[in-house]
Amino acid sequence: MPSPPERTRLRRKPGRGHHDRSVIDAIVDEALVCHIAFVGPHGPIALPTTHVRVGDELYIHGSAVSGMLTALADGIDACVTITLIDALVFARTAFHHSMNYRSVVVFGRATRVDDRVTKLAALAALIEKVEPGRSAACRPPNDKELVATSVLTLSLVEASAKIRSGPPLAEDGDDAHLPYWAGLIPLVTTRGAPSPARDPG
Amino acid sequence: MPSPPERTRLRRKPGRGHHDRSVIDAIVDEALVCHIAFVGPHGPIALPTTHVRVGDELYIHGSAVSGMLTALADGIDACVTITLIDALVFARTAFHHSMNYRSVVVFGRATRVDDRVTKLAALAALIEKVEPGRSAACRPPNDKELVATSVLTLSLVEASAKIRSGPPLAEDGDDAHLPYWAGLIPLVTTRGAPSPARDPG
Repeated sequence: MPSPPERTRLRRKPGRGHHDRSVIDAIVDEALVCHIAFVGPHGPIALPTTHVRVGDELYIHGSAVSGMLTALADGIDACVTITLIDALVFARTAFHHSMNYRSVVVFGRATRVDDRVTKLAALAALIEKVEPGRSAACRPPNDKELVATSVLTLSLVEASAKIRSGPPLAEDGDDAHLPYWAGLIPLVTTRGAPSPARDPG
Repeated sequence: MPSPPERTRLRRKPGRGHHDRSVIDAIVDEALVCHIAFVGPHGPIALPTTHVRVGDELYIHGSAVSGMLTALADGIDACVTITLIDALVFARTAFHHSMNYRSVVVFGRATRVDDRVTKLAALAALIEKVEPGRSAACRPPNDKELVATSVLTLSLVEASAKIRSGPPLAEDGDDAHLPYWAGLIPLVTTRGAPSPARDPG
């Protein structure tokens, strides 16, 4: 297996790369979902799932019979990718159009969490991340539900971030004076008005 | 290579699965980015990029020296995953918390677009998708820029969609009467006020 520095080295646009854990953690913590790449029975596949970071560990969960979780629990090579899109970048030339983004790539191998206390803590953290306080404002998992749920953990040791921010690249020569609008259009994700489920009556 | 019906068959929660192209196309067209999974020099990896659908084809682009595009252009197995998150789903039990989402998984092998007309059309479509009319409101790629850009195409033939929508699962027995809020919190992505780049002067 290649050493971490090699595998997480950023080859394209290394100026956009970051290995600071504070930068990585902020992206991981803000994103609601990640994409997990692995080699499944039909070749490489990426599937979305929710995640939470606790310290240096990333936790994911799912049905105990999920194909992805079963495959990952065998300790195969995996990659977790997390992407936030911050803005559309419009330039005066088609070539310099871009997007502002913050992404993280984590290489590693997952292990299944069997310890009951750690498993319950990870499941609570998954809910707390989405809505602080919520894990105490619902019934916690019972034994049957715990058996039906797999929790996997994967270390953040081999993680790197890539970020594009700021305005479009300044254009040269005649391009700088083309009569086209250039700038950023921010993309913002917000929570709408809560819609209560029908009362069971 | 497995036949399309086998590889795109949905094993987990098949009730959430869709193979209708109109359902798949709507998700592909709404999403600004996809994640592409492939096996790179260090194992499986998923990387984000922008995409556009034109008919039955998905187009992506990037630097001609991009590691991902170079690898994909060799015709290796790839998977393109597109995910939209629509709402947080809160239930009375931790176990039934979920998210409403719409996702698409496409299996296939990419090929490089060398034909100049098709390449220009794909690059214009990538911009048009983000902002209709914009490809005519900027300078189109010149020869040098076209050489520096790779465009790849991948068929949507082996695509499937998975969707969760609607309220939390109705809970049974005592769970239905737990004194906790249950319902949906919609997530909405909007465009903020445009921020013009500084005038080159």
